[in-house]
Amino acid sequence: MRDFGESRARIELVRMTRTLRGTVEYDGTAFAGFQKQPRLKTVQGILETAIGQVTQQTATVVGAGRTDAGVHALGQVVHFETGSSLSTGTLERAVNACLPAAVRIRCVEEVDSSFHARFSAKSREYRYLVENAVIASPLWRDRAYQVAQPLDVEAMGDGATLLQGRHDFAPFGTPMKYSRHSGEGSELVEVSGGTERTMLAADCWRQQRFVHFRFVADAFLRHMVRMIVGTLLRIGRGALSVQVLARMLQGDRLVSAGPAVPAHGLYLVRVRY
Amino acid sequence: MRDFGESRARIELVRMTRTLRGTVEYDGTAFAGFQKQPRLKTVQGILETAIGQVTQQTATVVGAGRTDAGVHALGQVVHFETGSSLSTGTLERAVNACLPAAVRIRCVEEVDSSFHARFSAKSREYRYLVENAVIASPLWRDRAYQVAQPLDVEAMGDGATLLQGRHDFAPFGTPMKYSRHSGEGSELVEVSGGTERTMLAADCWRQQRFVHFRFVADAFLRHMVRMIVGTLLRIGRGALSVQVLARMLQGDRLVSAGPAVPAHGLYLVRVRY
Repeated sequence: MRDFGESRARIELVRMTRTLRGTVEYDGTAFAGFQKQPRLKTVQGILETAIGQVTQQTATVVGAGRTDAGVHALGQVVHFETGSSLSTGTLERAVNACLPAAVRIRCVEEVDSSFHARFSAKSREYRYLVENAVIASPLWRDRAYQVAQPLDVEAMGDGATLLQGRHDFAPFGTPMKYSRHSGEGSELVEVSGGTERTMLAADCWRQQRFVHFRFVADAFLRHMVRMIVGTLLRIGRGALSVQVLARMLQGDRLVSAGPAVPAHGLYLVRVRY
Repeated sequence: MRDFGESRARIELVRMTRTLRGTVEYDGTAFAGFQKQPRLKTVQGILETAIGQVTQQTATVVGAGRTDAGVHALGQVVHFETGSSLSTGTLERAVNACLPAAVRIRCVEEVDSSFHARFSAKSREYRYLVENAVIASPLWRDRAYQVAQPLDVEAMGDGATLLQGRHDFAPFGTPMKYSRHSGEGSELVEVSGGTERTMLAADCWRQQRFVHFRFVADAFLRHMVRMIVGTLLRIGRGALSVQVLARMLQGDRLVSAGPAVPAHGLYLVRVRY
């Protein structure tokens, strides 16, 4: 009888577990990146703490993209499972009340248990913001990367166009590593071995003293956007030709890409499912 | 002979003193306001330290407007006198290299010794930024004041229009106090006794989820913009009628203005001479 009762309780618990999805915005300045790390302030860690405070249960938050320290997000997507019966609206308000002002969650909704923020994602959109000015604006110092030299935006746009389509982006980054949790702790593992990715959109444009870069791909390698922008900026300064970028994409490894631009100009703006 | 030599040296020194003007941008978040105060980090104090490092001479910086703690500036104007013979371009670069990234000076130029950043100013333009959204954006948390309730921007615009012209703005603030330096230290003094000011332009408009307020006046009372915006927001929420604001401007003291909105949405954007 005692065993039977325990089984029933376990079934009840399984039934009550819901998968919730939410959109997360954060100012990356204050964080050591999205992914939880021991003794460091991370977005995942802060979210798990806040959800834990609200639901009184341990929560594991999975994000669509692993953003590095200093990288911002307007539309990071996360999912987590919870046994809490709070309405999504109440949970959203309560979690936001527990979060520091540098992180906010919105659009919390219940989704099918098969939904996975990372594996279900069809594409990610990143933007990179360059402030093209001789003197950096104090109000944008953690939000945009200042470049003093004149930039040829048309040439950079030609370079961006070349990136569209299926390519081996090995010169621009390495596969992402994610932590895998087990009973004995967590370890970093590569989730996809290859370095081929499909760039669905890549462009850049000038808006007053700012230059915007936009990249949409099925997935990104680690540091890929920052390496691409660093390469395009060399084209924009006239230090690299669009033809050399074309050769790099065709497998020529004599010219190296980059250098990677700083994290604070990078934004994860949208994830599509 | 010795006295004669000293006089000549003094004349030489007077001749070499130049008045320099510059435009200053700052992120007010980290500062206890513009005006120097003992033991506090202020924009004036930081500027005087940086100019002192570059010129190896004590400098006194005068600003066009005294901004409170947390208030930002895109176009604060300052002047200072210096005996340094550095070119304005060199001085500008060197001072910026000594300043924290939260403050930058630009457009440094030599002006007539009669120029005074505060007394020569014909008008000042302030803007106030409201983020009209249920959940405040982390990236704008020190840059805009979040208001969750729906706002009637047209009604606030009608209120703003009423403010234009010459009025007694006593309900919206008190005369500014500036420190006067003397041999025995410094004291705060009111520089203009009255509370009448001329509002040259006042308007507001919506841009996506933001509501912008713009005010141009010959001079402002202390807290005037923040009290005006607080009053207009009551109109925007439907809690105060435009007619009551009209009565306030006609001298009716039965209704009080405000409350003052927080400093972090306020920007000193331009000073005209």
